Amino acid sequence: MIIVLKKDITQETIDHVVEKIKTAGLAVHISKGKERTIIGAIGDESLLASKALEALPGVESVMPIMKPYKLVSREFQKESSVIDVGGVKIGDTDLQVIAGPCSVESRDSLVECARQVKAAGARILRGGAFKPRTSPYDFQGLGTDGLKLLAEAKKETGLPIISELMDPRDTELMCEYVDIIQIGARNMQNFRLLMEVGKAGKPVLLKRGLSATLKEFLMSAEYIASQGNSQIILCERGIRTFETATRNTLDLSAVPVLKEETHLPIFIDPSHSAGRWNLVAPLAKAAIAVGADGLMIEVHTDPENALCDGAQSLKPTKFARLMDEMKKVATAVGRNL
Amino acid sequence: MIIVLKKDITQETIDHVVEKIKTAGLAVHISKGKERTIIGAIGDESLLASKALEALPGVESVMPIMKPYKLVSREFQKESSVIDVGGVKIGDTDLQVIAGPCSVESRDSLVECARQVKAAGARILRGGAFKPRTSPYDFQGLGTDGLKLLAEAKKETGLPIISELMDPRDTELMCEYVDIIQIGARNMQNFRLLMEVGKAGKPVLLKRGLSATLKEFLMSAEYIASQGNSQIILCERGIRTFETATRNTLDLSAVPVLKEETHLPIFIDPSHSAGRWNLVAPLAKAAIAVGADGLMIEVHTDPENALCDGAQSLKPTKFARLMDEMKKVATAVGRNL
Amino acid sequence: MIIVLKKDITQETIDHVVEKIKTAGLAVHISKGKERTIIGAIGDESLLASKALEALPGVESVMPIMKPYKLVSREFQKESSVIDVGGVKIGDTDLQVIAGPCSVESRDSLVECARQVKAAGARILRGGAFKPRTSPYDFQGLGTDGLKLLAEAKKETGLPIISELMDPRDTELMCEYVDIIQIGARNMQNFRLLMEVGKAGKPVLLKRGLSATLKEFLMSAEYIASQGNSQIILCERGIRTFETATRNTLDLSAVPVLKEETHLPIFIDPSHSAGRWNLVAPLAKAAIAVGADGLMIEVHTDPENALCDGAQSLKPTKFARLMDEMKKVATAVGRNL
Amino acid sequence: MIIVLKKDITQETIDHVVEKIKTAGLAVHISKGKERTIIGAIGDESLLASKALEALPGVESVMPIMKPYKLVSREFQKESSVIDVGGVKIGDTDLQVIAGPCSVESRDSLVECARQVKAAGARILRGGAFKPRTSPYDFQGLGTDGLKLLAEAKKETGLPIISELMDPRDTELMCEYVDIIQIGARNMQNFRLLMEVGKAGKPVLLKRGLSATLKEFLMSAEYIASQGNSQIILCERGIRTFETATRNTLDLSAVPVLKEETHLPIFIDPSHSAGRWNLVAPLAKAAIAVGADGLMIEVHTDPENALCDGAQSLKPTKFARLMDEMKKVATAVGRNL
Repeated sequence: MIIVLKKDITQETIDHVVEKIKTAGLAVHISKGKERTIIGAIGDESLLASKALEALPGVESVMPIMKPYKLVSREFQKESSVIDVGGVKIGDTDLQVIAGPCSVESRDSLVECARQVKAAGARILRGGAFKPRTSPYDFQGLGTDGLKLLAEAKKETGLPIISELMDPRDTELMCEYVDIIQIGARNMQNFRLLMEVGKAGKPVLLKRGLSATLKEFLMSAEYIASQGNSQIILCERGIRTFETATRNTLDLSAVPVLKEETHLPIFIDPSHSAGRWNLVAPLAKAAIAVGADGLMIEVHTDPENALCDGAQSLKPTKFARLMDEMKKVATAVGRNL
Repeated sequence: MIIVLKKDITQETIDHVVEKIKTAGLAVHISKGKERTIIGAIGDESLLASKALEALPGVESVMPIMKPYKLVSREFQKESSVIDVGGVKIGDTDLQVIAGPCSVESRDSLVECARQVKAAGARILRGGAFKPRTSPYDFQGLGTDGLKLLAEAKKETGLPIISELMDPRDTELMCEYVDIIQIGARNMQNFRLLMEVGKAGKPVLLKRGLSATLKEFLMSAEYIASQGNSQIILCERGIRTFETATRNTLDLSAVPVLKEETHLPIFIDPSHSAGRWNLVAPLAKAAIAVGADGLMIEVHTDPENALCDGAQSLKPTKFARLMDEMKKVATAVGRNL
Repeated sequence: MIIVLKKDITQETIDHVVEKIKTAGLAVHISKGKERTIIGAIGDESLLASKALEALPGVESVMPIMKPYKLVSREFQKESSVIDVGGVKIGDTDLQVIAGPCSVESRDSLVECARQVKAAGARILRGGAFKPRTSPYDFQGLGTDGLKLLAEAKKETGLPIISELMDPRDTELMCEYVDIIQIGARNMQNFRLLMEVGKAGKPVLLKRGLSATLKEFLMSAEYIASQGNSQIILCERGIRTFETATRNTLDLSAVPVLKEETHLPIFIDPSHSAGRWNLVAPLAKAAIAVGADGLMIEVHTDPENALCDGAQSLKPTKFARLMDEMKKVATAVGRNL
Repeated sequence: MIIVLKKDITQETIDHVVEKIKTAGLAVHISKGKERTIIGAIGDESLLASKALEALPGVESVMPIMKPYKLVSREFQKESSVIDVGGVKIGDTDLQVIAGPCSVESRDSLVECARQVKAAGARILRGGAFKPRTSPYDFQGLGTDGLKLLAEAKKETGLPIISELMDPRDTELMCEYVDIIQIGARNMQNFRLLMEVGKAGKPVLLKRGLSATLKEFLMSAEYIASQGNSQIILCERGIRTFETATRNTLDLSAVPVLKEETHLPIFIDPSHSAGRWNLVAPLAKAAIAVGADGLMIEVHTDPENALCDGAQSLKPTKFARLMDEMKKVATAVGRNL
């Protein structure tokens, strides 16, 4: 950790800062320049984390050197993680596509949708049973019945399933039914929920929060990993900016940055970020070109009558056409789909 | 709801949109201009909310007319709400100040802090027992023991207490000890937690999420109110912007805007937004000048050794001086402190 | 234009609003619902633009229906514009790449760079003669000498050149030397400069401002077009968000959105948005996949010693490799490079 | 400057970085920790600014220690600057209020407005002659005629005047008429314009760009100061965030942060940030409470018929009432108005 002191401070002030660092068990290196005195705190930075160094008199700024995440970092594990979900390998050369409706609505529509996305090449089925809705008056999902329908669709098609967990009290129930637990963007810093899925031992797809920095995103993954579960798929789904032409701004630069920082696979959700179905295809192809390991795409057999997010759902025929286009881009960048 | 159609569309497309609206039970008014056809959907807009109107062919944009929140709106209740917390009236002419340490650390420091903030004029004691920390390796709070210490501090000083709830499973426990349940910024859209505190019937202080719009903030309050609990205090604590000189950007404009939109009292937390104790005083005074109903300020007897957020905590003597300054500003804008 | 009135207003207030609209020459349609009265102003909205409708008593909100840009809109011209720059067609099926150093530094390095980017397939040479630098103490460019060196590089290689204009007083000078005038992000709303290049009649590459909405971006293009010059290339180069891992957040969703709204060609600058050379390749490929018409990439023969922005410049060998990769992606999406 | 190297790098890589620093004329201090090697570059950091240190192989991150601004910094000049504008002292204990219409429209309305704001206590008259408008089709100001009307209003009332400069070619003209030159938010990084007003020697009011960090804001002030003109008034007028309930988010925290960093006076423009007249009063009072040196407020004798920004203009009577309220707040924080 580097501690930059203010100009014109007394030796007493320097000694006070040095003492604080030594008390925490770190070594100290002082560099007195013409303009500024700089203190290097050498050793385990995490021991200093809870000390309010910045609150000390005479301290101008504090810069940590070490990354705050460990288990999920590329430094900790050099080779990329591959996560096996019922035989579907995530994070390998093959790209994977998760597809399905925003929310589970009925047995027939779900199974029909599952069949069609499977035929188009998707390998995992998505569907919301518990829905986080901005309004308490909106459709909140079918709950346990939704999970049961997902299980039926899995039985019919063989596709592993993913669904969102919103409440730590539902963790056990969710684990009975799904192959991947999804943590939504709004719960990215619901630390209690992260700890639960860390203990549950199931693969987790963690969505980036709307205004989460990549560092915070990785810290949330670290929460899960710290409980012993490293089967984590990161999913970028758009961040909140001043732009209003799209629902959110898809941050595709996040993919190469995360690839450097972490060994975890990275997915892109082009449906939620854009909020409009006609933007899904170009963004999906860009996601592959930028190096994502897979995509999560909303498909609905009847978007006009979808109970949620119909505006961003593709019809199965459009999805199948997009899969063909995506395969070409995947080949162009040396991946398979 | 106003539906603007694209240029050069067919009558068939118009009929299709009209039919969707009528099916939902609303009346339709069509206005054909030279450039655009516009459809007004007259009636209960919430019936259209789940219909994906924007996904319909020929629709360019959809503009709701009604506010999505009801119970918390100024339209629903014209007079401002006053919430009684153990005799302390929140939302009245008198401003109230909540003060105390970021996290409960020990009996002695807590009781000492409580005494001093009371002497300075604070009427409610804050202290975190369960702490939402970005890193899993940071101090997570004393948990139940922390709540017990808060109860002791209350006994010693008579100050009602507020503490943060992070997990729906802790709701009952929390209700035993605290007078106000705090929902933190990261959990503003933890809808299950909102529903729990909505049922719990205790006063709730709801912090605005880091990237929540005021509309979303009010929708989260509506979640709580929809469960029968309208004792809600809104708390602005800084939003996330591009600026890095302060931890967050305190959005003081939010106060007059919220005052128009809702009957709920509005607090400001200048400590978390700024992240630096020396910004707390000017922001606190500005908060009063802009019309806030109260403040939530971090005070610690020994900020340098605080287990969390020491950099933004005031020492009791500085807090007492600030209270004096705040009183003058309160008087200047016709309030009492 | 739709004017939503507040609840419980008097007929007098309605009449007052109606009169204002009629005075401006528009027709009025009033729709009285149970909850709200809504007024439709039918006719040329631009006549109402300068009337402060929102300031009128009783008005809750005002929603324009028409787009504020005309000449640059897809409605005005359905077919995509193709701009001819010395035989290089921009906006056609063929993608075009602009490459070269951030700033012109010396004859030798510029000509060498020009040769190498040409060999790799770039068709236009970039190079800054006047540099907008955040600090007054940084290298500000070679000025006229830089333009002369660009002209020499053009003579040697046959590549048309592009360079940035910062000052209306330099317009004539710039027009003597360059084939495309670049307007930088910081000057996107320097309206006087926009008017100058609108009159100059040269092709213009207009960069999106760091915090400009797409609507504002198109309005700035409209400024240029309103002076009679429609040879405008739009260039997205990253927007400012809360994320600090990249210099800016490249908004690739902007490409399909702009493609809907305007007939103008759209370029992407992956170098400035990322600020790090190793992010340029993935973002460049994503830009092609998302549908951009071309790219603007910084190439320097010796990035370590570049006088500006070395961190984001590619060496010519890396650029050549990237061009090969980009060609494959272009083919995959039905374009040529 | 602190250079943090990547993990597991060779001695050769370290030597290469060290050589670059030494070549630039700085001394080097190397600290090899268990996890990272850190290099301190000691000496004049500005010599390294143009070297692309981050592009060097093996470099993980680079952290400057020194502030990039000098002349405008509090370190350079400890005592606060006081700027004299025709006898009106800006930056002193007395707060100053600049008031007037957004744009100059007619002699009568301007003189009437000037008289009324003077009576209410404003000491400087504002009025736009050249207007930066988002649309080329909107009213662009009266130009030179507007300046002449301002001069007449000055003659009638004795109030010094301020007006916005948009084009370096108008600098001389502007200097003939106005007492303070305003640089608008959109031109905060129009570096040529900054240099012109730096040379002009008139007091300058520099508005913060919509998405400018405080560091960039001060760098723009440094541009002006570097040309020999230190009579600079900084003006915060709202930043762009995701919030849409207000036009911009007024960043009042900027005031105490700037007060620490610079000796220049700081004004607040509550009219432009909010975009709605009924938010002006609470924000103006908050600006005083937070420590601003003055305010810039839009006043129009007939806001409903204003040619620009009527929605945010106060009527003279409301302005007079606000001045009374502001005086009380000023007294409460130890200032005079």
